Order: sequence, then C-alpha cells, then structure tokens
Amino acid sequence: MTVFDGSVLPARKTYLAGGRAGVRVPMREVPLTDGGVVVLYDTSGPYTDPEHVVDLERGLPRLREPWIAARRPGETQRGLARRGVITPEMEFVAIREGVEPEVVREEIAAGRAVLPAGRRHPETEPMIIGRRFLVKINANIGNSATTSSLEEEVDKMRWAIRWGADTVMDLSTGRRIHETREWILRNSPVPIGTVPIYQALEKVKGDPARLSWEVFRDTVVEQCEQGVDYMTVHPGVRLPYVPLTARRKTGIVSRGGSLMAAWCLAHHEENFIYTNFAELCEIFAEYDVTFSLGDGLRPGSIHDANDEAQFAELRTLGELTRIAWEHDCQVMVEGPGHVPMHKIEENVRLQQELCGEAPFYTLGPLTTDIAPGYDHITSAIGAAMIGWYGTAMLCYVTPKEHLGLPDKDDVKAGVIAYKIAAHAADLAKGHPGAQAWDDALSDARFEFRWEDQFNLALDPDTARAYHDETLPAAPAKTA
Amino acid sequence: MTVFDGSVLPARKTYLAGGRAGVRVPMREVPLTDGGVVVLYDTSGPYTDPEHVVDLERGLPRLREPWIAARRPGETQRGLARRGVITPEMEFVAIREGVEPEVVREEIAAGRAVLPAGRRHPETEPMIIGRRFLVKINANIGNSATTSSLEEEVDKMRWAIRWGADTVMDLSTGRRIHETREWILRNSPVPIGTVPIYQALEKVKGDPARLSWEVFRDTVVEQCEQGVDYMTVHPGVRLPYVPLTARRKTGIVSRGGSLMAAWCLAHHEENFIYTNFAELCEIFAEYDVTFSLGDGLRPGSIHDANDEAQFAELRTLGELTRIAWEHDCQVMVEGPGHVPMHKIEENVRLQQELCGEAPFYTLGPLTTDIAPGYDHITSAIGAAMIGWYGTAMLCYVTPKEHLGLPDKDDVKAGVIAYKIAAHAADLAKGHPGAQAWDDALSDARFEFRWEDQFNLALDPDTARAYHDETLPAAPAKTA
Repeated sequence: MTVFDGSVLPARKTYLAGGRAGVRVPMREVPLTDGGVVVLYDTSGPYTDPEHVVDLERGLPRLREPWIAARRPGETQRGLARRGVITPEMEFVAIREGVEPEVVREEIAAGRAVLPAGRRHPETEPMIIGRRFLVKINANIGNSATTSSLEEEVDKMRWAIRWGADTVMDLSTGRRIHETREWILRNSPVPIGTVPIYQALEKVKGDPARLSWEVFRDTVVEQCEQGVDYMTVHPGVRLPYVPLTARRKTGIVSRGGSLMAAWCLAHHEENFIYTNFAELCEIFAEYDVTFSLGDGLRPGSIHDANDEAQFAELRTLGELTRIAWEHDCQVMVEGPGHVPMHKIEENVRLQQELCGEAPFYTLGPLTTDIAPGYDHITSAIGAAMIGWYGTAMLCYVTPKEHLGLPDKDDVKAGVIAYKIAAHAADLAKGHPGAQAWDDALSDARFEFRWEDQFNLALDPDTARAYHDETLPAAPAKTA
Repeated sequence: MTVFDGSVLPARKTYLAGGRAGVRVPMREVPLTDGGVVVLYDTSGPYTDPEHVVDLERGLPRLREPWIAARRPGETQRGLARRGVITPEMEFVAIREGVEPEVVREEIAAGRAVLPAGRRHPETEPMIIGRRFLVKINANIGNSATTSSLEEEVDKMRWAIRWGADTVMDLSTGRRIHETREWILRNSPVPIGTVPIYQALEKVKGDPARLSWEVFRDTVVEQCEQGVDYMTVHPGVRLPYVPLTARRKTGIVSRGGSLMAAWCLAHHEENFIYTNFAELCEIFAEYDVTFSLGDGLRPGSIHDANDEAQFAELRTLGELTRIAWEHDCQVMVEGPGHVPMHKIEENVRLQQELCGEAPFYTLGPLTTDIAPGYDHITSAIGAAMIGWYGTAMLCYVTPKEHLGLPDKDDVKAGVIAYKIAAHAADLAKGHPGAQAWDDALSDARFEFRWEDQFNLALDPDTARAYHDETLPAAPAKTA
C-alpha cells in the first residue's frame, strides 16, 4: 500500500467494528509470506487508508461529532465513567487495546487513566493513557520564529504519527501560533497537547513579568475552543519552592517552569495558576480538556535529580490532582527529565503515591548528561525503565535535544527510539499480546523469511535498506 | 589536536606516571574555556598522541616487553596476584581507574576481575574488567569472504577505540584470517579477543563434523603465539543440552554454539572442548590468555530468554570457571543476548552465584525483537541495566545486527550507544568519579559555554554539527 511521501508501508489498513454505529477502530495488518497475519496498533490515522483523499484545507473527517453532540458541555469522560457510562470513545479504546470496555471505564473513573479527547477536536481517534494499557509515546513538534512553515509542521505531525506517536504536542512559539495549531488540529487524528503559557507570553510581548491570570485564562479558553485535547500547566511552581533550586547545577530548565518562577519572583506573589486553579478546572471540565500537570522544577542534570525542589512540586501536584478530580477533570502528571538509573524507580513510586495513581507522563528521563547528539538513546534507556515501573506515557527526546530544533529525520529517530522503549516496557510489564509481535518477527528471522522480517520491523524501510547494503544475504552473526 | 582521519578531537593527550619505570598511563584531557580541565579515561592509544608516528607495517611500541620478559611462561596475572605480587600491569590499571593497586590485585586474585594481556601482545595498554571497576565495552570487527581488506579492518579497530571501545574482538572468517589478525594485533593498544573455532572451521573446509580437538587445539596455540589476549570458547554446549533447544523459537543463534552442537550431534559425542578442558587451561595459562566462556546456548529471541538450555549451560560454565582458576587462568563468562527487561537481573544474579563472581560479559541484551536496524538502541537499554546490576563488560551491538556486516558508521554508532550504556551504569553503581563528567558538562550547558559542552561530549563532532544546523544558537527547550 502506498502512503504519503512516496514511501511504501508493507501493511494494509483494516478496521475493527465496535458494537455501536461509528465505532470503527483502525489497525495495521501485516500479511506474512507463510499465510499468517499480524495485526498491530495503528496511530497513523486516515493518511494510510488508500480510500482517504488528503485535503489539508478541509481537514480530517469529524468522526466523534455525533458522540460529542449527544453530550452536554461539562460532561467529561471521567464524569461519565464515574456515573457508569461507557462512552463510544471508551468502546473504541477497549477494542484498540484488546480489553473489555468495563476495564476502560473503571480505570478512567478511578483516575488511573485518561482519555484525552477535547470537545472541540472531533477528528481524534480515541486513545487511552494509563498504566494498565499499552505504554504510549508523545512527540513534540512546533515552529519557532526562525524556522518552518505551517505545512512543515503539519507534515512533521503526520510523519510522527506514521512512525507511531500516540499524541503530539505543538510547542510553537513566535508569530502564527494560533494558525499553526489550527492546521495541526484539523488534520490530526491523535490528541494534541499544548503549553498555553507559551502563547500567553507572546501576548505580553515576551515579558514574563507582564503575564497575568487574565491573559493566561483567555489563552486557555482560546485553545479549548480550538480543540486542544490536553494542556501542560505549571501550578506547582510555587513561590516558596523557587529558592529550593538555588543550589542546583542547572536551575530551572523547564521553559514553562522558568516563566512561572520569573513571574513569582518579579511580583513576589504566589503562582497565579495555583491560586486560580479551581477556575481553571471549571474551564477544563467544560471542554473535557485533560490536565497535564507540568513539572516545572524537574531536574535538568544528573546532579539535580530527585532533589527537594522536584519533590516539593510533586507533592503540590498531588494536591491539585485531587482538586481537578473533584471537578471531574481528567489528570495526568508530568515527570523528569534527567535521572540516573538507580533513582528512576523512586520517581514512579512517589508520583503514584502522592498523586493517587494518576497517570505519569515523563520526559525521558536521560540517564546521563555526557552525550549531546544522542539524547534519544540516553533517554530511551530511562524511558524504557520508567515505563516498566508504571509510567503511562513517554515524551520523546530527539537527537537534537539541547542542541537545536528537530527536523523530520530527528522526529523519526525520536519516535522510533521511544516506540522501542514503550514496547520494551510493555513486554516487561507482561502486557497481554505484546510479545506476539516479537514472536512473529523472531519466527520470521529463524525461518529466513526476510520479507516478513522487514515488514514486521518497526521501521521496514531501514531494515530493508541495511540488509540490501551487504551482500550476500547472510546476516551478521557474532559468537 | 589533530588525529587520524582528518578529524579533530578537542582534547590533549596526557600521561599519568606510575611509581615504576615504564608505567605511563594515557588519559584524555579536555581544557575548558573557564580555565578548568576535565581528565577522561582514554582508549584511543598512541594514535591520538601527536608525538606518535603511525606506521602500520612496524606496529605499535611494545610497552609491556620488559615486564613480560621478567616473567616465566605460565605466570599469569591471577597467579601473581594470588602470590601477593602487584605487577606493572596492575599498577597501570590502578592509575587508569583511580584506585589503589592493592584493590586491583585483590580483585584479580579473587577471580572477580580479569586483566586480559596475552604474553605475546606486548603492545596492549593494560585494562581491567570487573564489577568494582568502570564498566567496559567491546566492539566486534572482522572481515568476511566478501567484504573488506586488511587495512579496512585495522582502520575499523582504530575507529572503534577512538570512540571508546575497551577491547576489540576480531571475528574474521574466510581467507586471510591469520594475516588480518596479525595486522590488528600489532597495531592494537587494546586487548584483542577471538573465537578460535571460526578459524578451526576454515581449516576443515567449513564442515563442522570434521572439527576435532587436535585441529582446535592447534588453532588455539597458533592464536596464543600470535598474541591474542582473550578467547571465546564454547565448552558449555554439552551433548545433553542440545535437545533442550528443541522447543525454542530461534534454536541456537551463537555461531560457535551451533558449530559445537552440530559436532556433538554428528558424532553423538560429548563436546571436545569440554572433555579436553584441563589441557586447554594449560595452554591458556602458559600464555596468560584469558578465558571468555561463551554462552553458545544464549537465547536469540525474547521468547527463549532465561530458559533451561541457557541456564544448564551457565551451570557448566560455573564448574569450568573453577577448573580454570585451579590452573591460575583468568576467566570471564559470557551472557545473552535477547532478554526482556524484567528477566535481566536474574541473569546477573545466577551468573555471579554459579560462577563464583567471575566477571560477566554480555552481548546487549536486546530488550525487544521488533526493531531490526535499531538494535544498538534495543540493546543499549538492556546493556545499561545489566551493567548496573553488575556486568563487567558489554559487547556492543550495531544497527546492522541481524541484517548485515557493520561498516565504519555502524561501528561508531554501536560504540557510542554502548559508551552511553556503560557510563549510565557507572553512574547508577555510584562509581567514584563517574558523575564528575556529567557535572562538568551540565555546568557548561547551564552557563552556555557551548564550546565546552561540545568538547566534553562523547561525540564532539556530532554535537557541534547538530548545533550548527539550527540558527540562531538558542537550544530547543521543551515544557
């Protein structure tokens, strides 16, 4: 089957039908030369369906429109789950994950999973983030003042989901933030996350001291209206915690975190997102936008891992999780960053304990600082481990981390490294069905079914190209 | 400082002098723009010393010649250590690792570390492999009938050590095995390992049934005479264990293991390396060649990890370790392969228990089978973890694993991924001094000392190139 960009994916698009009208779950079906078939989770959206005519101006089909129309504003997946309702979205993800719909409902009701699907983003194919489900990965994209056009960002989004990104965060800065996001949202089949403080900062001409609750709130509403599915906010960067970062090697490395810290210090006042958190919950609930409680004080180096600044913020995020839950908001909690291997497990344990088992969503973590240019690898190690310990979603890191903005090759490298980490974690967690993929590929390998081995690979193009470079066909073997 | 290949390493070669004549330990010194200096472990040999004139025909200086001359054949580092002698090689590695010489002697005497330095390889700069020391990495190179010349293989060896390989295994097959190895040995400052059964097979025209103890023994002696520092042999593939692989997905994937299994089945006799192991020990002791007891029955897929075939062989390797120790031979024990994360720790625990804490030397392990083309990453995850749990040396895996023979780019990608894994393990083990490197780089990052950040990077060229691709100079930040 030919997909966009002229590349060939050796797979067929297939759909699994649900019990109710419109629930039609896309999967990737890999036909094998021995007559078998392997069915894989598919994030690539309608773009890999030969029936779909791509029209970026018109955007994707609005598959969730009737489901949303049947719901009142303020009815969230969590609220419905708690009232015992299995929504079409829940049925969709149950089929996608191969579990009973009741499991999905229970996990969402308990706050252990989120189903990020904003009221204004009917194009989303529902997916779930929670430790009982497949480990998910997020890819960050976003233009800046100096690089990339709207089309390029949409292209990066489509490229990221083609290789397996489960959600995409648009971290654009500079002019045309709104327009870039509009293009991405209307053309994205995966949930889109943002960091609204970035746009708020543009509105105050880049001066963090001029930020305010009003500017921030209006930006959040604008983004909710537009269809964002989840937002990273930094209410945990409280005024008393800022001095805790003084003895760090790398201070505050989160951009959102440093903006909030700068505002707190400039005004010597408590973080306005913290003080207005209940009102923020009302807005998020109205649009069923999922909270991603940002770790603005996450460590930016091995030296700073698991310090008091980080854990003080985490305790606050735990309190806020419970407040958001009272508003029936869905919540996930973000985590670091840079953490040596022996300190990774503590992060998950504490987050799960302090935040009532709300899903953990971590950036990496990078397990060493010495390899700029290879931080997709330094962090894939940490990501695989933290996923195994119970993290629900892994935010990718590309080879350009710390060095520059990722291009398309970097996006692919980051997504592939993180798909590896997520799948390794699924295997280690004993996720039912995860090992079937490995087994199918290993069978193909042992029987020298090269085409099947390539087609089952996470990246068939690269596997085939590497093989074809060396002749004769015998694989390299080591003692 | 300009080194071979026209590349620039932003570092100076420096030497730390020992207490006795000739002990002069090479280090890499990175000068910082703030006046500081970071001193790093250096595997690159004389090639990065501007005073050294490269002459591949003549080979490297024979720095260990006087030390070896003062010793009788059969006096091994282990034997000397057990008699309380601190050899010049031990003093050398003590300086290199930043520990007391007595620690080195004790660890070698106890069998918990090996110092692989063959009597006939005076060019080696001594290094140590053991869980109390820095985690080491090995790079496999080797020509085949179809690809690469002698010069290319020497070039790959120099390339591998330039990026940080601590030892190199020459896995050449086909014609010119002896000549290739001669070139590599005479020009290698790191220990060279081999798998002598490969050459023995060439001598019997590729028919494993025609292998014999005599052919094998003569090959081992030839390689000992030539200067090999350690050899992988497969005495643990015993006749009764072969049927245990019948229900595997991927049978026997080790080339040496499958040759021995083929021989056992063809003759229905016990493995001739096992039955002649005492004689083999006498040969190894005479030349102080270190055993690397191969895991011929290692799993080749996630499905086969930690099975009875693998652990039956490991128990035999434990018995043989003790026999080799009685001959004062140095021993390390090889491990898998393909292992999901949750089964990695058991490998180290069992190996340490069954093999009397002899150093563990593992290939990867790969933590999933689904990513051919990226197995340097699937396995860097497993390598970092198994290093943390106590593995002393990690055998690299390149992106071409399962697909073809590695070229120079693949060698570099494999070495870098494994240096990351080894260093992440050193950090997690709390190795004294390991974090100083991360701290220096993080300080440079926080203070925007870009040149220092590049120069301290594991791969300065790539870090600098990635940064220069994106303008302006501001690093990518994420929320």
